[in-house]
Amino acid sequence: MRKYTPANFTDIKLTGAFWRERLDTVLAHTVPSQYRQLGSHGILESLTLPQPVPELRIPRTEHGFTTQIFWDSDVGKWIEAASYALSHRRDPEIEKKIDAIVDDLEKAQRPDGYLNCWYIGREIDNRWTNLRDNHELYNAGHLLEGAVAYFRATGRRRFLDVMERYMDHIAETFGPDPGQKRGYPGHQEIELALIKLYNLTGDKKRLDLAAYFINERGRQPHYFEIEAKARGDEHFWQGTQEYNQSHKPVREQDKVVGHAVRAFYMYSAMADLAAERDDAELKHACQVLWKDVTETRMYITGGFGPSASNEGFTTDYDLPNATAYAETCASVAMVFWAQRMLNIDLEGEYGDILEQALYNNCMSGLSRDGEHYFYDNPLESDGSHQRWEWHPCPCCTMNVARLIASVAGYFYSTSADALIVHLYGGTEAQLRVAGTEVGVKEVSDYPWSGDISVTLDPASETEFSLKLRIPGWCKGATAWVNDEPVDVAANTVYGYLDIRRGWKKGDAVRLNLPMPITRAYAHPQVRDDYGKVALKRGPLLFCIEQADNAEVPFDFVRLPRDARLEAQVLPGLFDRIVTIEAEGRLVGSEGWQGVLYRTAPPEEQSVTLTAIPYYLWANRGPNAMKVWIDED
Amino acid sequence: MRKYTPANFTDIKLTGAFWRERLDTVLAHTVPSQYRQLGSHGILESLTLPQPVPELRIPRTEHGFTTQIFWDSDVGKWIEAASYALSHRRDPEIEKKIDAIVDDLEKAQRPDGYLNCWYIGREIDNRWTNLRDNHELYNAGHLLEGAVAYFRATGRRRFLDVMERYMDHIAETFGPDPGQKRGYPGHQEIELALIKLYNLTGDKKRLDLAAYFINERGRQPHYFEIEAKARGDEHFWQGTQEYNQSHKPVREQDKVVGHAVRAFYMYSAMADLAAERDDAELKHACQVLWKDVTETRMYITGGFGPSASNEGFTTDYDLPNATAYAETCASVAMVFWAQRMLNIDLEGEYGDILEQALYNNCMSGLSRDGEHYFYDNPLESDGSHQRWEWHPCPCCTMNVARLIASVAGYFYSTSADALIVHLYGGTEAQLRVAGTEVGVKEVSDYPWSGDISVTLDPASETEFSLKLRIPGWCKGATAWVNDEPVDVAANTVYGYLDIRRGWKKGDAVRLNLPMPITRAYAHPQVRDDYGKVALKRGPLLFCIEQADNAEVPFDFVRLPRDARLEAQVLPGLFDRIVTIEAEGRLVGSEGWQGVLYRTAPPEEQSVTLTAIPYYLWANRGPNAMKVWIDED
Repeated sequence: MRKYTPANFTDIKLTGAFWRERLDTVLAHTVPSQYRQLGSHGILESLTLPQPVPELRIPRTEHGFTTQIFWDSDVGKWIEAASYALSHRRDPEIEKKIDAIVDDLEKAQRPDGYLNCWYIGREIDNRWTNLRDNHELYNAGHLLEGAVAYFRATGRRRFLDVMERYMDHIAETFGPDPGQKRGYPGHQEIELALIKLYNLTGDKKRLDLAAYFINERGRQPHYFEIEAKARGDEHFWQGTQEYNQSHKPVREQDKVVGHAVRAFYMYSAMADLAAERDDAELKHACQVLWKDVTETRMYITGGFGPSASNEGFTTDYDLPNATAYAETCASVAMVFWAQRMLNIDLEGEYGDILEQALYNNCMSGLSRDGEHYFYDNPLESDGSHQRWEWHPCPCCTMNVARLIASVAGYFYSTSADALIVHLYGGTEAQLRVAGTEVGVKEVSDYPWSGDISVTLDPASETEFSLKLRIPGWCKGATAWVNDEPVDVAANTVYGYLDIRRGWKKGDAVRLNLPMPITRAYAHPQVRDDYGKVALKRGPLLFCIEQADNAEVPFDFVRLPRDARLEAQVLPGLFDRIVTIEAEGRLVGSEGWQGVLYRTAPPEEQSVTLTAIPYYLWANRGPNAMKVWIDED
Repeated sequence: MRKYTPANFTDIKLTGAFWRERLDTVLAHTVPSQYRQLGSHGILESLTLPQPVPELRIPRTEHGFTTQIFWDSDVGKWIEAASYALSHRRDPEIEKKIDAIVDDLEKAQRPDGYLNCWYIGREIDNRWTNLRDNHELYNAGHLLEGAVAYFRATGRRRFLDVMERYMDHIAETFGPDPGQKRGYPGHQEIELALIKLYNLTGDKKRLDLAAYFINERGRQPHYFEIEAKARGDEHFWQGTQEYNQSHKPVREQDKVVGHAVRAFYMYSAMADLAAERDDAELKHACQVLWKDVTETRMYITGGFGPSASNEGFTTDYDLPNATAYAETCASVAMVFWAQRMLNIDLEGEYGDILEQALYNNCMSGLSRDGEHYFYDNPLESDGSHQRWEWHPCPCCTMNVARLIASVAGYFYSTSADALIVHLYGGTEAQLRVAGTEVGVKEVSDYPWSGDISVTLDPASETEFSLKLRIPGWCKGATAWVNDEPVDVAANTVYGYLDIRRGWKKGDAVRLNLPMPITRAYAHPQVRDDYGKVALKRGPLLFCIEQADNAEVPFDFVRLPRDARLEAQVLPGLFDRIVTIEAEGRLVGSEGWQGVLYRTAPPEEQSVTLTAIPYYLWANRGPNAMKVWIDED
């Protein structure tokens, strides 16, 4: 049983301008345009079986691999994102579309419950023969998450029934018993989907199957080796088992390695399982891995995985900026993991990283217009890195959509006697705390401002803790209850201000989180940030973009340690945002005419720089950008 | 007729410790060990024709190319270097070896004068069919330089006769007349060799042939295209005609491009020809090219050509440090060119660059023990760049040897009424100035000290100008004639202090060139040096090497703008050198335990750095090195 349970996002209404804009964009533009893209790329059509001659739209690579095998997952993720959208605003058109997809899936499903359109359409006899590469369990997981979300949004259970049958089939196929395959996914995902299903239905065998996949992973003899041998295919294009975190049993893993999304989906499931089963060993493994990645392998954007070649991790402190992979999906997966860590222990650091990944790397993945995407999110660009409308492997598109459509679900959680606030922004919620229905109304202009007011409206006066996250970036937070000051420092435990009292209707808490502009420095071992500085304000990381600094050659700009920095509200830019005006220095080429070397250092002149929040970059055409600026 | 003529190095005796040590090393170690290497690599043997089955010791590349076709040139350069050594100290053993080589060459020479051992031994019918790639004229040039040097050293003219016959053959073969090939070298070199021959013999047709090669180069229709078509071989592995500077007629060239050694050998010959024929157009082309390369494409070491792929130039300000090619041969060739520019106009800049290339990049090419070499001379190394004993293409070995063995020839030149001093260091010379024999004795510990005393000993009192180069790096030079102060500023024209008077026996000039440690900064467009500083003292560039700074992680060291810098004489290091002790700053990792980003910049601590002259690096085993150090 989880100690802390996230509030269901359907119980929370986003009213603040910041998230409202993002949510409306996803509802109005992202979800419908993604459906069009799924259609025009043949992905929807690929579900309609039997197809006369199953066409391979995405050719195989030299290794015999095609991204087309992911398509079921793309559909599952779109249904999930669309269902979150439906929770905000029902839409018969969208529901008709989903039902039609479910028709296809239901028809495609084999009598034994198996449901993978790629294998059914092409080579059903080869099913379950290449878990390592061919994503059957991954696809099943995403379809299952879609089915759970659709049921929660609409109460319709046909898709859920289809998926429950498929899960029954999977549970029969895989496990430690005689006649079962001792396999597990090549791309982790189904584990956390199964736990979602368990949280919905309470059916313990779903949790057991998730636990089996987690615990079996990486054991010897190694299943992927056995499986490859059986196929007569010894070639593994990724080289090492670190790639999919099957190099050792998960409880023994202490370094974050390999493909970042696989890793974080797995850690999410591990944290889920640790919380559900109060598994101290698994929790410890999560803590060790958390510490490892956040202390040595995380971009300041909350991005993860510097390398394109394995879409993942390399070595400690290897965090190049211009070539950063930092896949959108990896940051979304970090949000999942961080939330699940908060289900185990209420530690502000989990909320801090959740917020950091969400507001920066995740949001960078979706354009302002809601119809363009980043797969990789570099921290520096010469202007050549541009958003795309679609991608041969469109995982990030639906991942960022489902995150934003359900972002309200990350704001609150509850425990037996506490109402916990992790994120800030205008919301109206109806939550059950200590046995009582409590209306919660938060008014704030977060993340632009740290002035927050929370008004509680319990059905009856009830004693419980109101726990408010004091972000790690914040110094000198102040708070009042009904205009009585609260001693924030004395009452803050592990990053959460705990205000315990009998709450009655209309009780109001004011919280002020000061948001000065701060400078950020990276560990000196991060070679690519050495001698450089980044600017932050509140949860937002800033960057300079050429669009706001047309005449400034970024290669020659510095931000001295004592530079004037000033926050400015710009009503005309992206509706209304806060920018940073910074007094930089520009190294000029005056006096260098005909001179290649000299004894005097280059002259400098003052230059006014405008920095915008990182997540907004690349929304104004080809455009150079930089997060880390030379300091001295 | 040249306005200024370099003094023959045989008239100058090196007495100062600095050059004496280098010269003794070349005499005792470099020349003999190179002979052994030429023997053990089959290069000497390759001259003994006919060979039963001519073996191809250096296999051909995929383009059908083998460096074995250079071998004649290696022999020529060794004879040249050895002959310079003989000028210092006759040696019957060496002379016997050279005579034996001349025996072989004489026997190999064809009745028509042709002499290329590779073609004669293998495919004589294909001679003169691939000037672009196959180095026949280049080899001829180096053999000719060897013959001229051997004649000057010993008075024996058999080798010179052989080569004169070969030059007659070449003059018959190439030219604008009917029946002649309108060819010119793929690798320039023979042009300057022919002018050396002309300077020795006064035979004007040698100068004419050099002029033909210079003037024909790059004309349309393009000879290398015609030649390639005739061979039925359209493939040019170097891609463009810029590679060998045949992309346009030399007088129209205004950008330094392509292979650096080819370029500088050609510019040297152009300058020679401009001086000999008072050719204003050619002089102007040289001036434009000089300005281009020294203002945009020169390493602070006096190295040239950043790129290994074309052994040459890329784009303006592209001067990477760790991957710098900066071939030893290219700097040696720059010394040749600079000296020839000084034959045209007495401008201090030519002497400055000559000195810069000589004391830094050129000398880096030869190890302290005189038997190990650098082909490429990077400005930064992680310790993996090591000296080698020999090289598949051993051009640099003999090039640095012949330069050092003849270095005295760069110290002085004379004109009708002037004795000019370009370089400093202890010397004793006997020169003819204004019709009078003048003994010159210079005492100094240059480059360690800038205190210089020059005593003149004319056969009779004679009026002439004594012109002393005031290096561009020097501020506040002072001078005295017989203890009478000289107004240096008022009497310095284009970088040369002109002291004109009637000189009589025992007249002594004291010159003081202050040598504070100075900081050097590169043009801001040099991306790889941006925010960095280099240290210089006098003509010497310094570097930090791990051997002297064992505990200092070079990646984390800075040299603040106001750092204390102190010159120290270290008697125990490399005999006796001046080092720089610098008070640097080291970025530490204290306070970063478990922290990846923070608001406070990294702490720094003081660290004492020892810098040594760049030319001495890599003489103490594998060893990291850095010229450009982060400043702030």
